[in-house]
Amino acid sequence: MNREQLIEIVREQMPEKRWQHTLGVMETSVRLAEQYGADPAKAELAAILHDYCKYWQVDEQAEVVRESGRDLEVLEYDKQLWHAPAAAWIAEETFQIEDEDILNAIRYHTSGRPNMSLLEKIVGLADYIEPGRDFPGVERLRELAATSLDEALLAGFEGTIRVLLDQRKIVYPLTLLTRNDLVAKLNM
Amino acid sequence: MNREQLIEIVREQMPEKRWQHTLGVMETSVRLAEQYGADPAKAELAAILHDYCKYWQVDEQAEVVRESGRDLEVLEYDKQLWHAPAAAWIAEETFQIEDEDILNAIRYHTSGRPNMSLLEKIVGLADYIEPGRDFPGVERLRELAATSLDEALLAGFEGTIRVLLDQRKIVYPLTLLTRNDLVAKLNM
Repeated sequence: MNREQLIEIVREQMPEKRWQHTLGVMETSVRLAEQYGADPAKAELAAILHDYCKYWQVDEQAEVVRESGRDLEVLEYDKQLWHAPAAAWIAEETFQIEDEDILNAIRYHTSGRPNMSLLEKIVGLADYIEPGRDFPGVERLRELAATSLDEALLAGFEGTIRVLLDQRKIVYPLTLLTRNDLVAKLNM
Repeated sequence: MNREQLIEIVREQMPEKRWQHTLGVMETSVRLAEQYGADPAKAELAAILHDYCKYWQVDEQAEVVRESGRDLEVLEYDKQLWHAPAAAWIAEETFQIEDEDILNAIRYHTSGRPNMSLLEKIVGLADYIEPGRDFPGVERLRELAATSLDEALLAGFEGTIRVLLDQRKIVYPLTLLTRNDLVAKLNM
């Protein structure tokens, strides 16, 4: 399957608006990869697939996560988190992607994790700052991204945590561990 | 050893200002116990001992935690957290307190934990709102405490988390798990 065929299949999984978001994440991931010295082709491939399951029925997303036999603890948390590990499993099983770094960039694009790889950081940050995103603080993230991947990502995850605190929603513990890990490294 | 003898020994462990804080936590713990139906004597005993190790050298605090053989993960986090499990061990070993609820109220007074007991909540909240405390938001905690132990405690832990985010310091994961647990129960 070539790039264009894959893109057509991905596009069919989601409404047009979300597809435009995926295009934005692809473009931003490639740009960040070039800027920070990662492989642009890997970054683009992870970006193409990162939201593959986002508009599936949530019980289908859960089924895929269960089928994968890993990341099962995510099912005890918000449904918004399920599409990431589900898409990583689809990438591996349906599209035969074997590169662990690409799979992990898909798997952890929402929550992050401690010790994120460069590729994981790039796709996670691209998801926050792609041109279609418009939330309070996104401009600051884009400014930070120009000089520091880690500072931008930290600001992104902290923003997420603060919104969840404000909205009285559960904060996914892995997101806090990711934020703590970035703080520890940046404060060194 | 009677109450007065214990109080004299505790008083010798800390500067006068911290002793005044302990007196405030004792008074507030007794009041909250009476208000919310816990045992005032247990609440007072936990309060008397909760900061026993607070002004010890940090390496002595760490030594006591290691000696206890539990809560060892706390040693990977901020030193401000060590005095609580250290004091729980002193309460058990030096003062032969066997009541697990009292020991846990001491052990978790800083971080909380999911599924806190009534006594644990009381001592944890008293530590936030005793009359000597003066930080932004403390008056709101005192108001909430008049009607809901859980709402007041949630506001306390959330305040702690926000301050740590603002100060770019590590958030102890157990504090977030405690906050999530309170949110889940209050949102039911």
